[in-house]
Amino acid sequence: MDAEIIAVGSELLTAGRIDTNSLYLTGQLNALGVEVVVKEVVGDHRGRLAEVIRQAMRRARIVILTGGLGPTEDDVTRDAVAEALDRRQIFHEEICLQIEERFRLMRRRMADVNKRQAFIIEGAEVLPNDRGTAPGQWIDEKDCSLLLLPGPPHELEAMFGRLCLPRLERIVPRQVIRVRTFRVAGMGESDLDQLIAPVYTKYQNPATTILSGPGDIQIHLRACCTSEAEALALLEEVGQPIEALLGENIYSRDGEPLEAAVGGLLRKLQATLAVAESCTGGMLAERITSVPGSSDYFRGGFITYTNRMKQQLLGVPEDILKEHGPVSAQAAEAMAAGARLRTGSTFALSVTGIAGPEGGTAETPVGTIYVGLAGPSGAEACRRRFLGDRARVRAFAAQMALDTLRRRCATVSK
Amino acid sequence: MDAEIIAVGSELLTAGRIDTNSLYLTGQLNALGVEVVVKEVVGDHRGRLAEVIRQAMRRARIVILTGGLGPTEDDVTRDAVAEALDRRQIFHEEICLQIEERFRLMRRRMADVNKRQAFIIEGAEVLPNDRGTAPGQWIDEKDCSLLLLPGPPHELEAMFGRLCLPRLERIVPRQVIRVRTFRVAGMGESDLDQLIAPVYTKYQNPATTILSGPGDIQIHLRACCTSEAEALALLEEVGQPIEALLGENIYSRDGEPLEAAVGGLLRKLQATLAVAESCTGGMLAERITSVPGSSDYFRGGFITYTNRMKQQLLGVPEDILKEHGPVSAQAAEAMAAGARLRTGSTFALSVTGIAGPEGGTAETPVGTIYVGLAGPSGAEACRRRFLGDRARVRAFAAQMALDTLRRRCATVSK
Repeated sequence: MDAEIIAVGSELLTAGRIDTNSLYLTGQLNALGVEVVVKEVVGDHRGRLAEVIRQAMRRARIVILTGGLGPTEDDVTRDAVAEALDRRQIFHEEICLQIEERFRLMRRRMADVNKRQAFIIEGAEVLPNDRGTAPGQWIDEKDCSLLLLPGPPHELEAMFGRLCLPRLERIVPRQVIRVRTFRVAGMGESDLDQLIAPVYTKYQNPATTILSGPGDIQIHLRACCTSEAEALALLEEVGQPIEALLGENIYSRDGEPLEAAVGGLLRKLQATLAVAESCTGGMLAERITSVPGSSDYFRGGFITYTNRMKQQLLGVPEDILKEHGPVSAQAAEAMAAGARLRTGSTFALSVTGIAGPEGGTAETPVGTIYVGLAGPSGAEACRRRFLGDRARVRAFAAQMALDTLRRRCATVSK
Repeated sequence: MDAEIIAVGSELLTAGRIDTNSLYLTGQLNALGVEVVVKEVVGDHRGRLAEVIRQAMRRARIVILTGGLGPTEDDVTRDAVAEALDRRQIFHEEICLQIEERFRLMRRRMADVNKRQAFIIEGAEVLPNDRGTAPGQWIDEKDCSLLLLPGPPHELEAMFGRLCLPRLERIVPRQVIRVRTFRVAGMGESDLDQLIAPVYTKYQNPATTILSGPGDIQIHLRACCTSEAEALALLEEVGQPIEALLGENIYSRDGEPLEAAVGGLLRKLQATLAVAESCTGGMLAERITSVPGSSDYFRGGFITYTNRMKQQLLGVPEDILKEHGPVSAQAAEAMAAGARLRTGSTFALSVTGIAGPEGGTAETPVGTIYVGLAGPSGAEACRRRFLGDRARVRAFAAQMALDTLRRRCATVSK
């Protein structure tokens, strides 16, 4: 079964923006056994969009439109679909009241333009939006199902997962697709691929995809079979040798991010954590606390951007800063030890380094990172150098810190 | 003048890959005054691609195809264009010899399949490829110019810049494009649109686009004229009343993010900043320190996730936590005052709230945020409630904190 995805918005036709909703939707559709055959991006132009919709409906069984459902003049999706299908739009009082209620909860008054979002195409099924004001719509026209979804990713993903997937499952012929995702830290992409390519290239099914981020690699295995047992057996046949080759470099077998894996290990050890950050400036703590329930193990942290703060808030000795500088193994160790002492945590992580673009020297070039880890058995630090801009060096550094703690926790729990 | 860009390749229709060549091409075309009106991604399917090409040629003066020019079976661009235009393909001996020569230089033997790359569509102009084996092609058909470019970005960019831009400049009427971007905090999208729509809807040129993120709105004005003076005058004509209507809600006139705008104000005041975060868990500090050079004004911060840490690290009185709870105006004020005192900064911001999904009560539901601000004239706190998941509430809260400081700085510097 085929699908097309149409992203609506003139901003997606500029040189600086790209449609990424289609990646999420493609993943979900593929998992159902539906193939995406064409993707389009169309600007806020009613006539042109209506034409593209008509063409897509001739080619595909499922057509998904994303965006253009907002309250403003340049949100044209509703009008374009009505034009393409030659159907009227009907005002729904109860939707308008829901939108008003949403504004009331935020202690704001609904603007008049928001009433536009209460217009529904004749014969459409309303898809309520529990994260925003724009409701989605599901329209069946002859042999084609047309889905209108809001543009903001968190709204779209919640609506698609909750309301569209169950409906799609009813119309898509039965196929069983099972996926296994390994996540790996502490290895480069080409090293990893050289190691495991001899395993996965022998198979067309499961299909293997490797995605790479700063210090983070995802390996997706996707098996498509007529029975679940067959799919799981295939995943096992390919997954097992990959696991054996990568060993403890694998931190997750279900796709959860590193901060969640580390949280799970801390919880198992009944250990607590604090952080002391210099160049990452809060990024490490932000990742740790992005996990719901992280207050069970995360005590708190220090962001010490200046030498004075490192001394005052963490008790890093002035001697160390003078002799070795704030970007040194000694400073990283002292920062971690200070954070641990001041919070009474089991473990404390520290990061200090040069994120750039300024501040590098011959001895300590931009991209140099020290991670310190203090625990019941003492403090240690390690050094790495990463290439890239400020944002990328910071992302690598936060990942390195989390992975350092993960490997320590894994050792302790053995 | 309008253009469409068609990216060819089944790999660009998977969940892990995206077409980025169109971003480069859009930048180049926009600079010439050419607007990209639709973008398509089509898999390696000859018939479907031929249909999409025919549709694009009816809509746009320029149609650019990227990718699908390789030597293998699944490279279908040449065949699809021949089918769409109903033209033959002709084997060019001299192109074949060039490809053979290229392989010889790399000390490899040309495979037989590479001969496919020496087929050129009847009437096409050959665009030699100095970085790879696949030549490009330029075809004029009635009122449309069709460009076939190779997929690898470094080949495409070299070929487009060297051979296509000069040809396009000859057919595109001289046009100048100028852009103005306002960024706004502390207002909802629909309130903003209701206020300024009466201004911008009167104009087709400049075109106005409104983009909305958590607590952040961007207004793009894009003027397309025959002279720079005319474009700037138009931007002024529309931009000035928008500025007057939005007043101090505008924090940026050049697109810089809120953390950079706040940094600029602090630098101007020669003031320093510290933060104390509870529910944002480092996100506020991370944004502040993402700005290169932020060490000039940012001293450091505290992440106090537990009551004990709020007392120990920030000196929040136990009475306040007992009487009002950690999510209260009193706690937010005390956190900010404590962070200011302990770092000796001019200003300190604090955030405390319920990011969810757990922890809400009837009185303090999930999404409730208090921002505290301490400065030379004392401490204050304000409360808001945001809807959304954990990540979204945290993003709103960090934005609210930065905007609170921005408004204070603007008042001080008056």
